[in-house]
Amino acid sequence: MPKPGSGDVLVKVRACGICGSDLHYFKHAPETIELAAKLGAPTDEMKRTLREGPILGHEFVCEVVEFGPDTQKALKVGDRVASMPFVLRNGAPVLIGSTPEVSGAYAEYMLLSEALLLPIDADVPDDAAALIEPLGIAVHATNKANLTGDETAVVIGCGPIGLTVIAVLKARGVKTIIASDLSPKRRELAIAMGATQVLDAREQSAVTAAGAGKVVIFENTGAPGMLGRIVLEAPQNAKVVVTGIAAGDESLLPMVAILKELSFSFVIYYTPEEFAEALQLIKAGALDWKKLVTGHVGLSGVTQAFKDLTDPETHAKIIINPWADA
Amino acid sequence: MPKPGSGDVLVKVRACGICGSDLHYFKHAPETIELAAKLGAPTDEMKRTLREGPILGHEFVCEVVEFGPDTQKALKVGDRVASMPFVLRNGAPVLIGSTPEVSGAYAEYMLLSEALLLPIDADVPDDAAALIEPLGIAVHATNKANLTGDETAVVIGCGPIGLTVIAVLKARGVKTIIASDLSPKRRELAIAMGATQVLDAREQSAVTAAGAGKVVIFENTGAPGMLGRIVLEAPQNAKVVVTGIAAGDESLLPMVAILKELSFSFVIYYTPEEFAEALQLIKAGALDWKKLVTGHVGLSGVTQAFKDLTDPETHAKIIINPWADA
Repeated sequence: MPKPGSGDVLVKVRACGICGSDLHYFKHAPETIELAAKLGAPTDEMKRTLREGPILGHEFVCEVVEFGPDTQKALKVGDRVASMPFVLRNGAPVLIGSTPEVSGAYAEYMLLSEALLLPIDADVPDDAAALIEPLGIAVHATNKANLTGDETAVVIGCGPIGLTVIAVLKARGVKTIIASDLSPKRRELAIAMGATQVLDAREQSAVTAAGAGKVVIFENTGAPGMLGRIVLEAPQNAKVVVTGIAAGDESLLPMVAILKELSFSFVIYYTPEEFAEALQLIKAGALDWKKLVTGHVGLSGVTQAFKDLTDPETHAKIIINPWADA
Repeated sequence: MPKPGSGDVLVKVRACGICGSDLHYFKHAPETIELAAKLGAPTDEMKRTLREGPILGHEFVCEVVEFGPDTQKALKVGDRVASMPFVLRNGAPVLIGSTPEVSGAYAEYMLLSEALLLPIDADVPDDAAALIEPLGIAVHATNKANLTGDETAVVIGCGPIGLTVIAVLKARGVKTIIASDLSPKRRELAIAMGATQVLDAREQSAVTAAGAGKVVIFENTGAPGMLGRIVLEAPQNAKVVVTGIAAGDESLLPMVAILKELSFSFVIYYTPEEFAEALQLIKAGALDWKKLVTGHVGLSGVTQAFKDLTDPETHAKIIINPWADA
């Protein structure tokens, strides 16, 4: 049982989404450390974390249990809260669920910083609140594209990020949203989120389907070769927003990118405003979250859930309810 | 002697700068065609152009000789003019100096479109007017960086584009401008243009010298490996503007770019407004153009000038005066 320090609040985890980055860490942590070492980055902390094991989980909704010292107590015990996945330590944000010291939400209890709590009203169910975090990334990704609403949007890869990007694009008034995925089920979800056209990436490229004109491309797959291919297929002046994490080196032709005046924004975070906007979008009904949540497990079901999530035909987002087994 | 068609003006070329892209075409056209073929692009026109030979030259200042049919004649014969390097053919812009049909300014006479003419006042000498075009690219490149004036700017490569970028950065009020080049003479010119610090790229990376904070990086070398190295060295949230044309594939680590939320803008053109702003900057004295112009040749001296420009210790910009030999 963690003990709340100065400014902390002890919370009970009600729901936590399993993120693709959790799966990525689970499968690829050793390679990532190897890559970091090759780049000359310090890896002692990464190795220690892997050895001791972090408690993952950064897409959560919780319930206040106890206030630590130096807290304002504007909320009360039992209130439901979300938070950006950071705690403040000596005034600086420390990522939740990424080191052994700061537990994530694959747990019954965890600590949050009172200053970062976002109260969740009764009209937002736990499953929806657990989606604020990935939706925040989608809000951030679309903001990086500086949308004017008259562009054609291309969404490559319809996992949870691609699907929430589609929902945000629709909420922003984008009229043409072309999405591609290898999985028929994911393409069906893309339509449900607001895609106006879906393509099997094996049959047709969504980028070439967009044609010329004002095009914004969201690359959410991290698939090897995808960046280089986008450079070749994108039309003049296309903006590319990259959320997909390729594991290794990727190559592209700068000469082609220059002649087309392409731009690339690589994104992973969000601002506090974007996180709060994600909650507002959920409250406004902009995200059909019930369709995204395809399963629930207790803590004992996490191992199986990690396996199940490799099948896009069955699952998009699995939510952990840590107290379900209790 | 070209004959002005509808909307055309026959002009006498007074001065034309030799651009790095002219040198690039001269040296690398066959490889570029080979690359285009490998990418599946149509290459018949490129091959024909190479076979028949285009007349190069797109950084020019001219003098009006004769108005073609359907012209307004707001200017008069003898007036000095510049133009973006396009002529309008059936309402569409066609690049000057890149096909056998549309002659560039390595010539005594050429055709321009009256609608695109920019009159050059007596206070702007020919050498300065010939620099409007490269300065327009620098204006465009800095606009792509959305400067707020409080960033540290890094300029990698101090050829004519890097040097004009430095001048624009200074004019925009950027306080810290760190430039790097292998050549001592180019570093000296960088200081003259407004760089606050210069580095020999062999000794220290300008990117790491910039430290953390708000950093904008201009990559003007096209050197193999440079993009991948910038990804590794750039600080969080750095913006990278790429004007340097690498000849082949370049590789980078998207995972590192994502964790740092880097952005890349590949640029080569400018808008009519940016081209006009370049002239205004010259009139305002923002570009110490006398230091950039390191030589003059007649048409008979072009071959030697192409050789001389490979030595950065001696030359930055050589201006062709096509009538010097006459």
